[in-house]
Amino acid sequence: VSVVCVNGRFVAAKAARVSALDRGFLYGDGLFETVRAYGGRLFLPGDHFDRLAKGAEAVGIVPPFDADGFADLLEATRERNGLTDALVRLTLTRGEGPPVPDPAGSGPPTVVVTARPAPRDDPAAWQRGLSVVVARQVRAGQGALKSTSFLTHVLALKEARERGADEALLVNPAGEVAEGSVGNLFGVWAGRLATPDPGAGALPGVTRGVVLDRARRLRIPAEERAVPVKALEDAEELFLAGTGWEVMPVTRLEGRPVGPGLPGPVTERLRRAYREAVRAALSA
Amino acid sequence: VSVVCVNGRFVAAKAARVSALDRGFLYGDGLFETVRAYGGRLFLPGDHFDRLAKGAEAVGIVPPFDADGFADLLEATRERNGLTDALVRLTLTRGEGPPVPDPAGSGPPTVVVTARPAPRDDPAAWQRGLSVVVARQVRAGQGALKSTSFLTHVLALKEARERGADEALLVNPAGEVAEGSVGNLFGVWAGRLATPDPGAGALPGVTRGVVLDRARRLRIPAEERAVPVKALEDAEELFLAGTGWEVMPVTRLEGRPVGPGLPGPVTERLRRAYREAVRAALSA
Repeated sequence: VSVVCVNGRFVAAKAARVSALDRGFLYGDGLFETVRAYGGRLFLPGDHFDRLAKGAEAVGIVPPFDADGFADLLEATRERNGLTDALVRLTLTRGEGPPVPDPAGSGPPTVVVTARPAPRDDPAAWQRGLSVVVARQVRAGQGALKSTSFLTHVLALKEARERGADEALLVNPAGEVAEGSVGNLFGVWAGRLATPDPGAGALPGVTRGVVLDRARRLRIPAEERAVPVKALEDAEELFLAGTGWEVMPVTRLEGRPVGPGLPGPVTERLRRAYREAVRAALSA
Repeated sequence: VSVVCVNGRFVAAKAARVSALDRGFLYGDGLFETVRAYGGRLFLPGDHFDRLAKGAEAVGIVPPFDADGFADLLEATRERNGLTDALVRLTLTRGEGPPVPDPAGSGPPTVVVTARPAPRDDPAAWQRGLSVVVARQVRAGQGALKSTSFLTHVLALKEARERGADEALLVNPAGEVAEGSVGNLFGVWAGRLATPDPGAGALPGVTRGVVLDRARRLRIPAEERAVPVKALEDAEELFLAGTGWEVMPVTRLEGRPVGPGLPGPVTERLRRAYREAVRAALSA
């Protein structure tokens, strides 16, 4: 992160500042989106904008940009950072306001955009896959908003690291898997693909949407449904899907191998299909 | 808010800035406490520090102050703002870090202190009491941490305002009341006082603790237990307890009067007892 865009102005990261009375800082009163750029082009910025706009409507923040303005901000920040393969994050908060929970009288909104290099393709990392645990210290809440009130996810990831794993799954009070801290979970049971329903606390991920769409095109039976924690033990394959992960196999769960402990065939197919979706979108 | 303390430096509110890469801003990765000052003296700063220290331990942030340093920061900020009756808020975040959820490599922590005038005694407001609704748009999550990931509470309060009420109660997935957006709920049933258990998602409020202690001294039967939403209809009295509210009667619930629609006798007794606790602590 070397250049940050704060309310439309580009500044060095070290000099990038927001008000100490910004409601994003005081109350996690904001939303964010992270969009990936491949070879200098944003992947599905419109889908990310749509989710952000829906969330903003729900929490009562009016974004100071439309879909084109959103993409332009991300694009300009990517370029100023000299990156072609990048993860570009836009944070939209309710802005400065009186330091009381009531959001009335706050604003205008604050917009901060950062960019960092995307992870490089690493065949060894793919073969190794991810080691995942089920979070014990926190449980999933409502998943509908991609909000900056993200501490539950931060603590899940912290727990994963402390337990020697790469990622932790959040479980809702009903004992169903909601999602990972930075991606959606998919599993294969009896050859059928399943992923937790948004009602279970899963964020409706953009990558998740692409995977479901491609599975349908490949005629892989796929459903959004409840995934009880217990069911994970019997999964033939597990993988995580997210803007950073893309499609990434989970080869160990709670220290035990998932299936044979290697990336599975459905995961392999969907990874290729996801990459095709990227190519198709960028050449459109 | 005219003077704000940022990492030990006092600056005008308009000039108070934190990094745009502060994890408090990006991820709600922080904690806060609001302490009340009466006549120029802080009320129970040690209790607030203890809760903050426990939360910091849980999330893995090391506060750059001890109990005395905490009180000194609050006290200095109160004084610089020329306030004697004040609500002084300290925000502690994990500090600046790479813009990824993993908290590794972040810090040092950021500390921001603000002060604003405490509400004045208003006998008419007391008689009128609060109009409260049950939040429909959000539900309670874990209540153990007073974190800056506070959007659920912000949205509950926003809903209350939109529905013409003063406050909204958060309900957990089991259908039990957890707390209000800025205070703990108490009720009276058959002359017995009850308040939701922390296990239901209630934050263990400092004011709540004082109320429970005083109830015991007054030999008012009091318990921490599950309070199903349904039970609210039969309550003889309801009140909210918090640093800002102190003890405040709830006289309307979902637009209908609670009991006779006036502050009840147990609420009145506990309000007096709370004020006595304040006087006792400040004259000690």
